[in-house]
Amino acid sequence: MLIKKELKSQPQYENCSVIIEIPLLEYQTLAVDTKNLRLVSRLQAILQWRDPEMSWNTSLYQYEEVSVPVDSVWTPELHVTNAITITTQPSSKDLEVLSDGRMRHEIILNTEVNCEVNLFNYPFAADACPVAIHIWNSKKCGGEMRLDEVKMKDGAHGDWQTEDVHLDQKGGNKKFILVELRIRQNNPFITLMLPSILIIMADVVSVALPLEGGERNSFKVTLVLSFTMFLIILNGELPGDSQCSPVIRIHFCVCLITLVFSMLVSMVLTRVAKEGGIIFCCFSKRFQKENAGMKDEGKNNTLYLYSTLPKQKNCCTYNIKLEI
Amino acid sequence: MLIKKELKSQPQYENCSVIIEIPLLEYQTLAVDTKNLRLVSRLQAILQWRDPEMSWNTSLYQYEEVSVPVDSVWTPELHVTNAITITTQPSSKDLEVLSDGRMRHEIILNTEVNCEVNLFNYPFAADACPVAIHIWNSKKCGGEMRLDEVKMKDGAHGDWQTEDVHLDQKGGNKKFILVELRIRQNNPFITLMLPSILIIMADVVSVALPLEGGERNSFKVTLVLSFTMFLIILNGELPGDSQCSPVIRIHFCVCLITLVFSMLVSMVLTRVAKEGGIIFCCFSKRFQKENAGMKDEGKNNTLYLYSTLPKQKNCCTYNIKLEI
Amino acid sequence: MLIKKELKSQPQYENCSVIIEIPLLEYQTLAVDTKNLRLVSRLQAILQWRDPEMSWNTSLYQYEEVSVPVDSVWTPELHVTNAITITTQPSSKDLEVLSDGRMRHEIILNTEVNCEVNLFNYPFAADACPVAIHIWNSKKCGGEMRLDEVKMKDGAHGDWQTEDVHLDQKGGNKKFILVELRIRQNNPFITLMLPSILIIMADVVSVALPLEGGERNSFKVTLVLSFTMFLIILNGELPGDSQCSPVIRIHFCVCLITLVFSMLVSMVLTRVAKEGGIIFCCFSKRFQKENAGMKDEGKNNTLYLYSTLPKQKNCCTYNIKLEI
Amino acid sequence: MLIKKELKSQPQYENCSVIIEIPLLEYQTLAVDTKNLRLVSRLQAILQWRDPEMSWNTSLYQYEEVSVPVDSVWTPELHVTNAITITTQPSSKDLEVLSDGRMRHEIILNTEVNCEVNLFNYPFAADACPVAIHIWNSKKCGGEMRLDEVKMKDGAHGDWQTEDVHLDQKGGNKKFILVELRIRQNNPFITLMLPSILIIMADVVSVALPLEGGERNSFKVTLVLSFTMFLIILNGELPGDSQCSPVIRIHFCVCLITLVFSMLVSMVLTRVAKEGGIIFCCFSKRFQKENAGMKDEGKNNTLYLYSTLPKQKNCCTYNIKLEI
Amino acid sequence: MLIKKELKSQPQYENCSVIIEIPLLEYQTLAVDTKNLRLVSRLQAILQWRDPEMSWNTSLYQYEEVSVPVDSVWTPELHVTNAITITTQPSSKDLEVLSDGRMRHEIILNTEVNCEVNLFNYPFAADACPVAIHIWNSKKCGGEMRLDEVKMKDGAHGDWQTEDVHLDQKGGNKKFILVELRIRQNNPFITLMLPSILIIMADVVSVALPLEGGERNSFKVTLVLSFTMFLIILNGELPGDSQCSPVIRIHFCVCLITLVFSMLVSMVLTRVAKEGGIIFCCFSKRFQKENAGMKDEGKNNTLYLYSTLPKQKNCCTYNIKLEI
Repeated sequence: MLIKKELKSQPQYENCSVIIEIPLLEYQTLAVDTKNLRLVSRLQAILQWRDPEMSWNTSLYQYEEVSVPVDSVWTPELHVTNAITITTQPSSKDLEVLSDGRMRHEIILNTEVNCEVNLFNYPFAADACPVAIHIWNSKKCGGEMRLDEVKMKDGAHGDWQTEDVHLDQKGGNKKFILVELRIRQNNPFITLMLPSILIIMADVVSVALPLEGGERNSFKVTLVLSFTMFLIILNGELPGDSQCSPVIRIHFCVCLITLVFSMLVSMVLTRVAKEGGIIFCCFSKRFQKENAGMKDEGKNNTLYLYSTLPKQKNCCTYNIKLEI
Repeated sequence: MLIKKELKSQPQYENCSVIIEIPLLEYQTLAVDTKNLRLVSRLQAILQWRDPEMSWNTSLYQYEEVSVPVDSVWTPELHVTNAITITTQPSSKDLEVLSDGRMRHEIILNTEVNCEVNLFNYPFAADACPVAIHIWNSKKCGGEMRLDEVKMKDGAHGDWQTEDVHLDQKGGNKKFILVELRIRQNNPFITLMLPSILIIMADVVSVALPLEGGERNSFKVTLVLSFTMFLIILNGELPGDSQCSPVIRIHFCVCLITLVFSMLVSMVLTRVAKEGGIIFCCFSKRFQKENAGMKDEGKNNTLYLYSTLPKQKNCCTYNIKLEI
Repeated sequence: MLIKKELKSQPQYENCSVIIEIPLLEYQTLAVDTKNLRLVSRLQAILQWRDPEMSWNTSLYQYEEVSVPVDSVWTPELHVTNAITITTQPSSKDLEVLSDGRMRHEIILNTEVNCEVNLFNYPFAADACPVAIHIWNSKKCGGEMRLDEVKMKDGAHGDWQTEDVHLDQKGGNKKFILVELRIRQNNPFITLMLPSILIIMADVVSVALPLEGGERNSFKVTLVLSFTMFLIILNGELPGDSQCSPVIRIHFCVCLITLVFSMLVSMVLTRVAKEGGIIFCCFSKRFQKENAGMKDEGKNNTLYLYSTLPKQKNCCTYNIKLEI
Repeated sequence: MLIKKELKSQPQYENCSVIIEIPLLEYQTLAVDTKNLRLVSRLQAILQWRDPEMSWNTSLYQYEEVSVPVDSVWTPELHVTNAITITTQPSSKDLEVLSDGRMRHEIILNTEVNCEVNLFNYPFAADACPVAIHIWNSKKCGGEMRLDEVKMKDGAHGDWQTEDVHLDQKGGNKKFILVELRIRQNNPFITLMLPSILIIMADVVSVALPLEGGERNSFKVTLVLSFTMFLIILNGELPGDSQCSPVIRIHFCVCLITLVFSMLVSMVLTRVAKEGGIIFCCFSKRFQKENAGMKDEGKNNTLYLYSTLPKQKNCCTYNIKLEI
Repeated sequence: MLIKKELKSQPQYENCSVIIEIPLLEYQTLAVDTKNLRLVSRLQAILQWRDPEMSWNTSLYQYEEVSVPVDSVWTPELHVTNAITITTQPSSKDLEVLSDGRMRHEIILNTEVNCEVNLFNYPFAADACPVAIHIWNSKKCGGEMRLDEVKMKDGAHGDWQTEDVHLDQKGGNKKFILVELRIRQNNPFITLMLPSILIIMADVVSVALPLEGGERNSFKVTLVLSFTMFLIILNGELPGDSQCSPVIRIHFCVCLITLVFSMLVSMVLTRVAKEGGIIFCCFSKRFQKENAGMKDEGKNNTLYLYSTLPKQKNCCTYNIKLEI
């Protein structure tokens, strides 16, 4: 009864193990999900092995090669151990069998791998992702994989470029395909960096605007609120938090806080310029002495200072002194 | 005939029950859907059990181990009772059988669990989700699960971090994997908290703007409308209503109403400043007496008060008194 | 030959009909799609029936209970007649059979039902959706369903709350599960109602702004355009058109038109205030007499009227008269 | 051997053809994808045919009706020839067989059809889509369909309303279900038409604003930029390009260009009003004569003209003349 | 035993090869994904081949044609070698067999092909995509494809139009369907080009605005920030980076930088106009000589120059000279 059940099982003789050769393994990156740090890829492999039961005597049956339907014989399976999802399909319903029992089968694997890409300096990131392939085996039974080379097929057109693919032999039956990815900087640079640089630049140059008519204030308000909206939209596109969070996130926070404080200082200055320097912060006297030496600096420089320094909250008092 | 049908059924002898050992259970969080409060996870388990029918005499058939196709023998199933969707896949098409009938099978479960996370203080939330696993059994028949440990595999890179995973033994055949989740505060803090804090701060400091030229009014309008747009976009990202709704929702409402009333008061003040205190609310006389003692407060403090208090609707009348 | 084919068919004896008991039916709302008016739900049911062929003599085979693989015996099916999509899964691969032929099977149904919810007063809607379950039968053959109770399992965390679930016995073999849904008002109220109320309120209070400096006009423009953007974004979230379309759609239209006319009137008044009342509408003379009695009203009240009435198009002429 | 294979094939006797009656065909529109012009629908049909092999002698086997599992007998298939995707499901696992070989089967078809709706006057479009159903047949063999009536079941709650469904008999074995669709104008009217009408109206009335203080310019800038944003958001919702592209697309372009030129002219007029009519277009002299007769028109009318005519580029020179 | 397994295999006689005729091949473009450069298409083919085992003697069995269920005989498979995903479905469950063994089968292929479209001049792109079809074969065994013509069926209503489809015979067993695609310019022109042209035009004409009142600055700020928002939204719709990146991306960058520098220059000019030409760049003396000859140019032309040239950073110094 046991024999009957094992009809479609793996060929099992003396050592309960089969040598599986992979003469061709093509790797293709389909997509890289920067948000969830996942790598979707497609592997196409040719598997070759010997099944002695499938051999025949060419003197009795004089053809050297037959084609056999895939689901009537046992076929080896290729696994990706670090995959989240994996689907395996035979490339064809038929399988090629030679008269000495050698079999040749072609499979296609679509797999999604969790890849901890280092995104610290985000729009310029480059890293390598391992895709661990192996063939099922237990202590004694199972397949033994012979794989020498991985070919890369160009595929993904998204933000990531697959630079190179090579095989990492970690001994045993587990082999790693190291996929070297590099981000294409154009897209995130235009979307993320350029607007933030230009907004900060506009904020710096807004010193040139006259303070009295309220122009500078309304200008800065527009800048701040635009940056807020910009930040919200972009936060949905920023990569997720891995162990080393992208430094660009802190960059945006600093930009936003800088803009806001620059605006607040500008608003306070407006009042000061109008009402002749009324001190409404109570701690202004403490700073009087320390700031005594700064009095001879011109008004313009101080103003320039305000719009660039991110933490000039306390500065508002000694500037008021200057005005008086 | 009954016998024939049960060919692939569970091994059933004296007590119609099988002991199923799970030497390894790996848990991996794939995603946490904050919007619908669902936890998508992936379980990888090795199941070991004895099937006396599958044993053989090693003196007759001298191999100690064979591999058998999965779909020709009975295999136990692992269920997640509180799952919404569940898909079970064998990790390999082959199964390892020892000569004494012990079988070793590896399965992968992808499951989606309804998890009532406590999101009261939303961007700083942390909670534990149970994933209830059990093995099918009726009163007499069925499997008995032996499981001691759960290993955590790092996985999700989204807003939630899986802190720890441990097993909760609730007796019987049902065991809970308690998944401890903690939100990564960076992302929601930058998106949700920072802009609302900065907008409120800008509203407070806008007292410094002169009232006459219409500057303060236009400033406040921009603030209110930006906050409205900001609120609409963010409402799509806010977590759904569970039993304890996140307090941040009320925070946003209060912010919005504060901003609007601050703007309205500022608009009324503009008119008052210009036309010298025309009372167009009919209930101004009632408040005259109560407000009599407040007359000696300075104009600046009152203004400051207006922009911070959320419910100053009635205040507009006594301020008009001050102006007269 | 017919007999052979019917191997897995329904047990058919004298009356070609089977009584199917459903001791437990658990209902769980997974999601409510307000846009397309669909109700996604999940039903978990235990089915019990007798299959005389599956009984055995306990004296010959002394076990009282066996487990049988599901796909080797006939199992009844539960249908949802008003479903758009329906997927049925057995909860387990095994089935419990008692010695007298009683069988116990557990199934899980995921179904999507078209539900004509009354959304007339949208953010405060509550309605009941029927989920019609039945068991397949023809005139003579088929199953007869015995179902007494439906249990509700808490599930959906979206905008809709499942309040209650009860069974509606409409005689015959068709039974309705009435699912009472109530919208959670918080979310749509904050997103839809609050901003529109605040914008209208800001428009009313903007009467206080001086007309000359152009402040009021720019204020009203900002209001109108913000409301337009707000309307576009929200139209994607508004529920679809069923027979009674939500009244909130008309509310938004009226709000928008009110705002625009308020703005236009304000613009015309600006010109009038400046140029001393040039009449550029040709029908101003017709209205002269009717408006004669209104001359003694103050300017402020008229202005106030303008910004609240939605249809003041014709009013612009008599106001011009007042100015002259 | 051939006989053995054909076990589950179609009943084939003298004429190798089967008459298939469809006493009930229910049509339900699930969704209309305006963007890709696709019609997703669901058909529910009862098929009746005779299979002489399935008949029995009621004297030997005294039941008049049995139920047979679907996958053990041959069943006819219904095709939708112009479908892009089609999935067929039996409504029940069991099939009703009468003693004279008559069989009764119920199927559910979900199909997606490419439908070239005429969207020329988009928010008021109405058209008919054919869904071509037929039963497989070759020259001699195959089925013959007898279908008289189609019933409509209400279904879709989106932007399109299914008005009527009727059968178009085109002879032969192919029949068309003509689905008459009409767009619900409410939703696209509010989203698309209303804001564009109001913005254009605001632009026209902005003539009333004084030119000197820069009010009119800033007003028009806000209008243009809002319209741009509005256009971008709406372009994602506009229907795709079919042979007759919707005229609303051109309407929006014309609106945008009108607004921009109105703004540009207003800006040029500001300068002219200030500096007393400096001619900085070199071709001003050519137009001097033609415009001579227009000098006696008042300033207001000309201004009104500017903001309504879409192509007033050349007009800027003769207006400058008027000012001089 | 081998014979038994090959029951459903390919007919294998002397040369282990089958000639497969494809009298009809219909191609239909379902969608073109501009973002990921993928072409989703649908192929409908009729396959004809001879299976000598399936022939019969019409004298014994007098019908010339029978229909056979598809899954009981071997059928050839059509592959798309450059496909990413491919699903093959028989068009009908039945297959037509003539008495001489000729068989006629109809299949439907849905495939997704990676297509490196040349998007250099994006909104006006046109290119051809190959879809490589072949029939499985090894060195000796396998099928031989005979295909002469491809018919095009109109299908996609998106941004791309399928202009023509023709067959490219590259010898051997692999044939290419060349799909000629052309972008419909209307949609991307309105969304991408028109707003950017209009914004740049508005920026150029804003020279006409007076500098003193701050009008021009606020106008330019609005332009810059609108363009930024516009850029962010559109970047999500722009096609991905292939080898020749679309030139429109650089166009947008240049536009944005031009706008920002135009705004900055305008802001600096405001200060200069007010304070009488204070030189706050230290390198102003170096340029004094070079710019000496340019003094006699009028102010207006210089201003015009500023708003059109993208790199006028250094120009700010000699303009200041002009003012002095």
